[in-house]
Parts: sequence; structure tokens; C-alpha cells
Amino acid sequence: MTMDLNLRVRISDLYAAYAACLDDGRYEDWPEFFTEDAWYRVVPRENHDRGLPLSTLSLKGKAMMKDRIYGVESTIFHAPYYQRHLIGVPMMAMHDAHTASVEVNYCVFRTKRDASSEILSVGRYLDRIEIGDHLKFTQKFCIFDNDMIPNSLIYPI
Amino acid sequence: MTMDLNLRVRISDLYAAYAACLDDGRYEDWPEFFTEDAWYRVVPRENHDRGLPLSTLSLKGKAMMKDRIYGVESTIFHAPYYQRHLIGVPMMAMHDAHTASVEVNYCVFRTKRDASSEILSVGRYLDRIEIGDHLKFTQKFCIFDNDMIPNSLIYPI
Amino acid sequence: MTMDLNLRVRISDLYAAYAACLDDGRYEDWPEFFTEDAWYRVVPRENHDRGLPLSTLSLKGKAMMKDRIYGVESTIFHAPYYQRHLIGVPMMAMHDAHTASVEVNYCVFRTKRDASSEILSVGRYLDRIEIGDHLKFTQKFCIFDNDMIPNSLIYPI
Repeated sequence: MTMDLNLRVRISDLYAAYAACLDDGRYEDWPEFFTEDAWYRVVPRENHDRGLPLSTLSLKGKAMMKDRIYGVESTIFHAPYYQRHLIGVPMMAMHDAHTASVEVNYCVFRTKRDASSEILSVGRYLDRIEIGDHLKFTQKFCIFDNDMIPNSLIYPI
Repeated sequence: MTMDLNLRVRISDLYAAYAACLDDGRYEDWPEFFTEDAWYRVVPRENHDRGLPLSTLSLKGKAMMKDRIYGVESTIFHAPYYQRHLIGVPMMAMHDAHTASVEVNYCVFRTKRDASSEILSVGRYLDRIEIGDHLKFTQKFCIFDNDMIPNSLIYPI
Repeated sequence: MTMDLNLRVRISDLYAAYAACLDDGRYEDWPEFFTEDAWYRVVPRENHDRGLPLSTLSLKGKAMMKDRIYGVESTIFHAPYYQRHLIGVPMMAMHDAHTASVEVNYCVFRTKRDASSEILSVGRYLDRIEIGDHLKFTQKFCIFDNDMIPNSLIYPI
């Protein structure tokens, strides 16, 4: 199924808005990019390639996402850092009449106070998007190449 | 206000040309991307977020930009380096009938002779573009995450 | 010559597919992105800028490309690593009625097992694309800024 140009533009805008939300640190808005029962996963590439189920992070449904954000902002002790997303050239296709599938490379840079920027996560998104008045992710898998993460992943990717 | 597809393409081309100009080292062409009284600023994110006025670099008008380029090429003593811009997925909107506003992430890599590439600046552009026969920036704010810049910023971002 | 929107989208898709092919490690599919007598070169920027002919890698024709891939997969002793391409905002133009020319920045990240991601190559593609039912590269020059490559280039860029 081909995808019309208008939808491509809307999807591009969705990724721009998603990155800006996280990079601005507006974490409480992040779950709004997902449908109620969406699945958000952060998975090492090695596990994904071998079909192993283990995820670094797996959140099923918006409620778990909100819980995670509450944790990040209120209970996890961590040094704050900035994120900056660079998202590459997407491969877009219609998955079915109401859903688009998108695969796209990303790099997230991390910057701590008084430190140089570094590469936090490099990988690709494997996403499904519900097409409606607003576009929402029903699935967002972040499959990352780097098993070695500097310290730990706090904020969503 | 929505933005028509044709203008989106022109804006995308503007960013590609802007990056190529700097990455090719054609610095004398750089002021031509701006209107006569445009404002170019390089600002740490911390200052921008708190509304603090201090900039790392603030050039008001093309004359100051040309002066800066003269300085870079003729008076500042510095080791030469290559720049390479990666510009992300833009958020575009009409600011008014004749002006577009664009927000987009960037990463500038720096490569010195006989050295590995490194991250020079990571951040986002907060831009205004005058829409005419040629697109020109009336405002270009480079808001960077990394307070710690390896050595110093010589060339424009 | 201006380029119609539909062709722009197809070219964008070509780059997304090219990056995915290499990043997925499907190296045997890589020569299929090229015409029979295409020229693939990896060139240091310094040599390119001075018009020097020396390339790090120069493959003329699909047969040489297949041979290279055979070498990479079967005869060169090397530690495996993942690649991840980020491709920037392209400058596209019609070169002639049947060929497009594209110039676009790239960064390739490399990730070795149990190690952090690092910058493998930063530069730009200087490409020619034959326009037909399928788009194919007739020329792909990878002009890289960093003379210092961490270890060596094994896989195509």
C-alpha cells in the first residue's frame, strides 16, 4: 500500500514533536503520544535480532508510561541530563487501512551539566502509528545498538 | 496556519544549503542566508530556558555577520577544523503571512587534521524565515546543550 | 531543472532503504542499489578538495562491489561491529533528464560488542541516481572528513 504525501508530512511532524517533547524535558506530555494500550519497549539489538523477549524497558499501556514518568521525576535518584534526538530518514508504509508502520534510525545525545555531549543511544525505532485526527503510537520499539549505556537510561528514548 | 507542501520543500532546501555552505567552508557566503537586520545568536540552553540575555555570540544585522567572518578568516588565530552539520526533522509553522518559524535539532561534528571526529555542538535552531523569492533568516538562534565546548567556537553553527 | 515532489519522496525512500540495508547487515543486497557500471568511492575530503585521485576504496561496477562484499564476509579477518547511519537534509537536483544528483551529509556510528558507540565516519555523499522503475546509484562518492578512522573501514559506508 502506498502512502499519500499528506500523511507522510503528518508522520514527519509527529516525530519532530515527539523529539521536541523529550528534548525539552516535558516528560509528563510524553504518554500523550501513545494510544491507551500502546506498547513501548527499549530493546538491545542483540535480543531483538535473536527474537529474545528480554527488554531493558517494557511499558504496556499509557498507565505504565505515566507511572514511569512519575518514577523518573519523583522517585529515581539521578543526576539530571539533557537529551537531544536526531532522527534520520524514515521508511514508511501502510500496515493496514488505519495503521502506518515506520522504521527510522535515531541517535540520542546526552549532555550533563558542565560536561561534553556524548552518545547515549544509537539505534532504530520500529513503530506502528494509528491514523486518526491525531496520530498516536500503538507500538514504539527502540532497538539500540549499544549494549554499553553510559550509566543508565532514565528518560524515555 | 498550515503550511503548503511547496514551502516545506523550499525550507528543507534552505537548511540543506545552509549546512553545505558552512561545511564546505564558504564562510563569506554565510551572511547571504540572512536579511539585512537579521539576528544571529548562539546561546547556552541554560540561559535560554531561564530567559537570561547572555549569549555566547550575538550578531545583529548582516554587517556584524560579515565582520565576524572577516575576523574568523583574517584575525582570529586558530587551528583549522572541518564542520559537518546533521539537521533533524523540523517543526515548521507559519508565524505570520510572510514569515515561517522553524524549530529543528542539530548536531555539528568537528574534525581536526589527523584527529577523530568529535561532537562540537548539539542543540536546536529556533528560527524565523522571511518568505520571498528567496528564503532568508530574520532570526537564527542556536541553542546548544553543551556548556562545555571543546576549545572554542570559531565558525558559525 | 526543478524536481517533482514525487521523485523527491522516492529518493528519500532510497536513502532510507540504503541505510537500512547496511545497518541491518544485509551486505549481499548492497550491490543491488547500484547500476551495473556504477562507481562507488570512499575518499578523504582533503583528497577530494584538492582533486587528488587517491581513494580509500574505489569500486567500479557491480562485480567489484560483489567481490568486496565476498571479501568482507568471507576473507577479511575483523571484529564484527554494528553500523548505524544518520543521513541529513539532502540537496537534490536534476543532473539531466534521466539522472538526479544528490548531496547529503551523513554520520555513521559504529558499535562493537560490549562497547560504547563511536563516530566511525562523518562526511557527505556526492551521488548520481538513475531514474527508472527502480532508482539506482550510478555514482556514490563518500567524502569523509575524518582522516583518522578508528581501526579500519570494513563494511561499506
